[in-house]
Amino acid sequence: MTAALKTSECSADSEEGAVACRNLEPLFAPRGIAVVGASRREGSVGFAIMENLIDGNYQGVIYPVNPKARSLFGHRCVTQLSEINDDQLDLIVVVIPAPYVLPTIKQGVAMGVKNFVVISAGFKEVGGEGVERENALKAYADEQGLNILGPNCLGIINTHPNVCMNASFGPLTPNRGNIGLISQSGALCSALLDYAGTRGIGFSRFVSFGNKADITEVDLMRSLAQDDQTDAILMYVEAISDGRKFVEAAQQITRGANAKPILMIKTGRTSQGAAAAASHTGSMAGSDEVYDALLEQAGVIRVNSVEELFDVASCFSDKVLPAGRRTAIVTNAGGPGIMATDACISSGLELCKFEDYTIKSLQFQLPAAGSFKNPVDVIGDARHDRYRAALDAVAADDNVDQVMVIVTPQTMTNTTQIAQEIGETRKFCNKPVVACLMGAGEVQAGATELRTKFNVPTYTFPESAANAMMAKCRFAEWTKTKAIKRDDIKTDKAAAAKIIDDLTSKGITSLVEAHAMQVLDAYGFPTVPFKLAADADEAVAAAEKMDGPVVLKIAGPKILHKSDVGGVALNLATADEVRDAYNTMIKTVKERMGDDVEIWGVLVQKMLGKGREIILGLSRDPSLGPLVMYGMGGIYTEVFKDVAFNVAPLDEADAKRMIAKTRSAKLLDPVRGQKAADKAALLESLLKLSQFVVDFPQVAELDINPLVVFEKGQGCMAADARIILSGGAS
Amino acid sequence: MTAALKTSECSADSEEGAVACRNLEPLFAPRGIAVVGASRREGSVGFAIMENLIDGNYQGVIYPVNPKARSLFGHRCVTQLSEINDDQLDLIVVVIPAPYVLPTIKQGVAMGVKNFVVISAGFKEVGGEGVERENALKAYADEQGLNILGPNCLGIINTHPNVCMNASFGPLTPNRGNIGLISQSGALCSALLDYAGTRGIGFSRFVSFGNKADITEVDLMRSLAQDDQTDAILMYVEAISDGRKFVEAAQQITRGANAKPILMIKTGRTSQGAAAAASHTGSMAGSDEVYDALLEQAGVIRVNSVEELFDVASCFSDKVLPAGRRTAIVTNAGGPGIMATDACISSGLELCKFEDYTIKSLQFQLPAAGSFKNPVDVIGDARHDRYRAALDAVAADDNVDQVMVIVTPQTMTNTTQIAQEIGETRKFCNKPVVACLMGAGEVQAGATELRTKFNVPTYTFPESAANAMMAKCRFAEWTKTKAIKRDDIKTDKAAAAKIIDDLTSKGITSLVEAHAMQVLDAYGFPTVPFKLAADADEAVAAAEKMDGPVVLKIAGPKILHKSDVGGVALNLATADEVRDAYNTMIKTVKERMGDDVEIWGVLVQKMLGKGREIILGLSRDPSLGPLVMYGMGGIYTEVFKDVAFNVAPLDEADAKRMIAKTRSAKLLDPVRGQKAADKAALLESLLKLSQFVVDFPQVAELDINPLVVFEKGQGCMAADARIILSGGAS
Repeated sequence: MTAALKTSECSADSEEGAVACRNLEPLFAPRGIAVVGASRREGSVGFAIMENLIDGNYQGVIYPVNPKARSLFGHRCVTQLSEINDDQLDLIVVVIPAPYVLPTIKQGVAMGVKNFVVISAGFKEVGGEGVERENALKAYADEQGLNILGPNCLGIINTHPNVCMNASFGPLTPNRGNIGLISQSGALCSALLDYAGTRGIGFSRFVSFGNKADITEVDLMRSLAQDDQTDAILMYVEAISDGRKFVEAAQQITRGANAKPILMIKTGRTSQGAAAAASHTGSMAGSDEVYDALLEQAGVIRVNSVEELFDVASCFSDKVLPAGRRTAIVTNAGGPGIMATDACISSGLELCKFEDYTIKSLQFQLPAAGSFKNPVDVIGDARHDRYRAALDAVAADDNVDQVMVIVTPQTMTNTTQIAQEIGETRKFCNKPVVACLMGAGEVQAGATELRTKFNVPTYTFPESAANAMMAKCRFAEWTKTKAIKRDDIKTDKAAAAKIIDDLTSKGITSLVEAHAMQVLDAYGFPTVPFKLAADADEAVAAAEKMDGPVVLKIAGPKILHKSDVGGVALNLATADEVRDAYNTMIKTVKERMGDDVEIWGVLVQKMLGKGREIILGLSRDPSLGPLVMYGMGGIYTEVFKDVAFNVAPLDEADAKRMIAKTRSAKLLDPVRGQKAADKAALLESLLKLSQFVVDFPQVAELDINPLVVFEKGQGCMAADARIILSGGAS
Repeated sequence: MTAALKTSECSADSEEGAVACRNLEPLFAPRGIAVVGASRREGSVGFAIMENLIDGNYQGVIYPVNPKARSLFGHRCVTQLSEINDDQLDLIVVVIPAPYVLPTIKQGVAMGVKNFVVISAGFKEVGGEGVERENALKAYADEQGLNILGPNCLGIINTHPNVCMNASFGPLTPNRGNIGLISQSGALCSALLDYAGTRGIGFSRFVSFGNKADITEVDLMRSLAQDDQTDAILMYVEAISDGRKFVEAAQQITRGANAKPILMIKTGRTSQGAAAAASHTGSMAGSDEVYDALLEQAGVIRVNSVEELFDVASCFSDKVLPAGRRTAIVTNAGGPGIMATDACISSGLELCKFEDYTIKSLQFQLPAAGSFKNPVDVIGDARHDRYRAALDAVAADDNVDQVMVIVTPQTMTNTTQIAQEIGETRKFCNKPVVACLMGAGEVQAGATELRTKFNVPTYTFPESAANAMMAKCRFAEWTKTKAIKRDDIKTDKAAAAKIIDDLTSKGITSLVEAHAMQVLDAYGFPTVPFKLAADADEAVAAAEKMDGPVVLKIAGPKILHKSDVGGVALNLATADEVRDAYNTMIKTVKERMGDDVEIWGVLVQKMLGKGREIILGLSRDPSLGPLVMYGMGGIYTEVFKDVAFNVAPLDEADAKRMIAKTRSAKLLDPVRGQKAADKAALLESLLKLSQFVVDFPQVAELDINPLVVFEKGQGCMAADARIILSGGAS
């Protein structure tokens, strides 16, 4: 059953280039809805849903199911689902105690219904048998190929004129608009609708997804992306279920010519990841910065409050994306002009320099006391005509990507007239124009005019305007980026797999340096030349094959902190030095760790020249999935925690962004007499690691520390590593 | 003439411990006001001021001065000032073209008036003769001991019931309240009043200070600090005139038992400082971070927008300061509880752990499905009684310093009743309580009740609440700090002065290492042992007197980049090495810089052991005054710009805060095998430098780079320095 009320010219899977996804249209535009648990009792949820469906003017047919009532809101009640005889019954809303939910769904399925909204609470969120109940629901949905929203949710709203469905128990039906909203919190939904109403903001679709037993935020995101009525997708999320799927979907939605912005409030800092981590990387992966990085990788605009959510969303009401960050400011007062300048610059916008022709035009049209540079001051006594002249002049300037216009209420100011002219300017230039109307009262009439008649976003003060404009600029820049898959990254999965399988079969799951380096080397990762030597003679022989001085490192299954036990000797140039160092090392390690410590021998490594020391890592977050970490090693990682995470696999753009976003990225450039680092080699290593993470799901954690990156053209080499396989720890 | 309408029990200079300041009371509470330029023409400024004075219900006598009108608003006009015969005429408001302003003021002075508000524009802000006009005004004010507000301002408002003066041309008279506002921008004032009105915020005094020819932001700040009606001082400032005076005044106001918070929007990023700087320090002093540091040093709460200004100010309506940052959250919905938790933590608040007795009490009183840990969830169906039980329980907990209570509108929610209970709880506990009422409509009635009846600050969403609560916590912590003057910092001003005077008399104003080190050494600053040697023999002799190997550095008046010209030789252990190095150095420098380069000889310095390298500096900002800079040297300064500025002189708390606020401060702790640095010695050096800055106003810029700080107990030493005297550059 895929039929639905008609809401769009293009169906979910017919459009070329469209993203394949679950077809949720029957859920959003059902031809008939049964409400199981519809109630006559005012204040009850079953009453509120009926009331909202009817008051919202639902365009399909409503069937209240209530064994005790004859009628509800003038609709004839049925005592049970099976009494409904309508092959266009597309959706069942379930508002009955938790234990009865699954049996009801089974009844619906027996009748051919595939779409359900489960409002009822009493599932995963209460723990215990609620968890079992939810698992059973999920298993049944998978088995039958159902669409189940919830449980424990507020419901679903679609304001499309052919549908007009408010199947929620929220306190009000939102205005129609171009914003699609998806929220994990039901209680917050009410507050959001309420607040948006006071700001004159309308919605296309509105979904509370509750426990997401079946339909997830990713399904809903993809569905809203395909909805013609939805221009921007707003999300409130407490936990993302699958980082990889989320990033993939979001990247597809937010890139390209038909990109839609996704704005998200993400709360609930994870600390799960950090708890039991055995590696360096694992211990740093539990922070909120990981979500920051993931949302950035996904192209999602993260906002920090409900105010900011709607501030930024409003800016997209005008569908023109700015060509760049260069901003012109037009104001009728100096102080607010300075505030706006500061706000623009601290948001990341640029204040443009005007062309000579613009300055001449402004000088010709404005009074001498005005300012003809950016910010343009049309002076306190400016009427609408002077605003128009200034706006037209700056909007026509080739250096201007967007305009912020500020109106402060002064003696001569008629904001409504000025608003009209701002709107007209906006119509005739293909650049975003944003208005700050600094005041209440009459000023607000102008704001309403601008919003409703001209789609010009309005703000009370410049800070929120500048923040929203910058978010739109970033989005405009992001839409043009592409996922760059590199097909020249050579790896040897089979060779690495063989070593890992060998070790696993011996019960070895915590791979110290000697093993980890073998795995990486086999995989095709650049490693410093090394050889495991079982005695002094082997060590000397290995050293002689290496060009230049060597390092010896003790090797054994339980020896983690090699330096602490005298297990490292540097810069050994001759055979005698190697032999002496070998003997001393074995002796010292045994003294410090006990005679029965298991020693395989020593790792003989070529002594590396100077380079930047990088740390690369992998950890797996229980909900987000595989995370790759990058950071400058040493104090930058240990003291400043200056690292970046992304979800694997990375494309080239991801990898570049990760490197660039660390503060210490500057140190890869020429600095204090050092030449630039070999960034190409570093990038390739990061991509290789990303592929490794995908190829070996059994690798739970990994540190490469350090990866030594030499000067440009000289490549890089892993000098030490550690791998922990699933189930392994230390 | 110091009489004024009675506004306060304590006069400006009688109260013990009060800060001495200009007495502006006659300006704020005049018994009679003349308006020169009062006008019958609606829309004119002279009309608006008369209208505001009358509509505002001014309690003194108004004298409109207008040669062409017989009456104005029923007041008999005089044609000129001198016709007024009233020895209680305390204030003249001047609203006439700029050229006539000074003559008018002179007339007033002849009549014995000392206080003036100059609304008129056409002064410094227009440049040219406007600047001369303003200078003349200022000179006359100084000469006569007048109080002149403006020119180019919106005016002054005092809502005290004995005064009720609105001597401004703003569009409305603000509600009475406990906030004093000082603004450099007139246009912004209107928007501020307008916006504050919509939020139900009232003011005690409201001043637009315009060009501040005479009365400055510091005078006004001190004056508001002494006003009984003012509990919080809000400022909008584009440029601070004198950093030192500002910091002193603000510290006095914001510290101690009767502290009042100062909140500031500071716009207009300075870049003056950076333009012509010759030193390292000078080139870094022009950024907005300098203002950040200065406001922090002053104890001022810097906010970034008008919304934030009033969000934070509202939080002070409740006069109880929190004892700490430990916050309890009580909510009726999970999602908003998580939002609030995130908001608290990212603002810097702490989520407290409850005592067992609190958890037991909550378990006893809340339904089983509630949450008894922080955040406490009273669940969606909570009525006022359940809120009260939860609030009383957490407010009584010893681990709770303050409470954030969240109300989302749900089916059973009666926000007005709940507001009542929140207010009652607040009354009976001596801890701040802040309410987030997430919605519009009925919810807002509850908010108004809380604000007006109980002084409980209310917010719509948790982010602004948490931000404001944190600002209040920081303020509470700051009020308890003290300026710690160290009297054990030994310096020898006379000795240093002698060297500086000697050099100046020879026309030397740019002091390279050899000279700068002599000055610092004489002053008592710890310097590495050094000796200027004029030939190889002297160098050898000097080296032999030093314990251990030495460094040679070329010395000459024009040689700045010593290494670049072969002018540095390190680690010379024997007499031969010193001699060879000397000869080679002289030869190489001459080869590279030409035979006629002036060379004084070489500086022989003791070769220092390892330590943290610090950069200390001084620059003088044209408006802020003397700035001291601190930073970790090397890449931290050069690449990461990780430095801190403060206005000199520093007290010990300032110096400690400067060091602590750099990110690299962590590197002074034990790190990667290095022991902790000698922080006490570092602190003393910073304080010595601060004193040096005060003692020698002719020192325009200074770099000590590096100051090598050894391990704890081992002290520190300046290893290189440069000083530029006023008028000197390179």
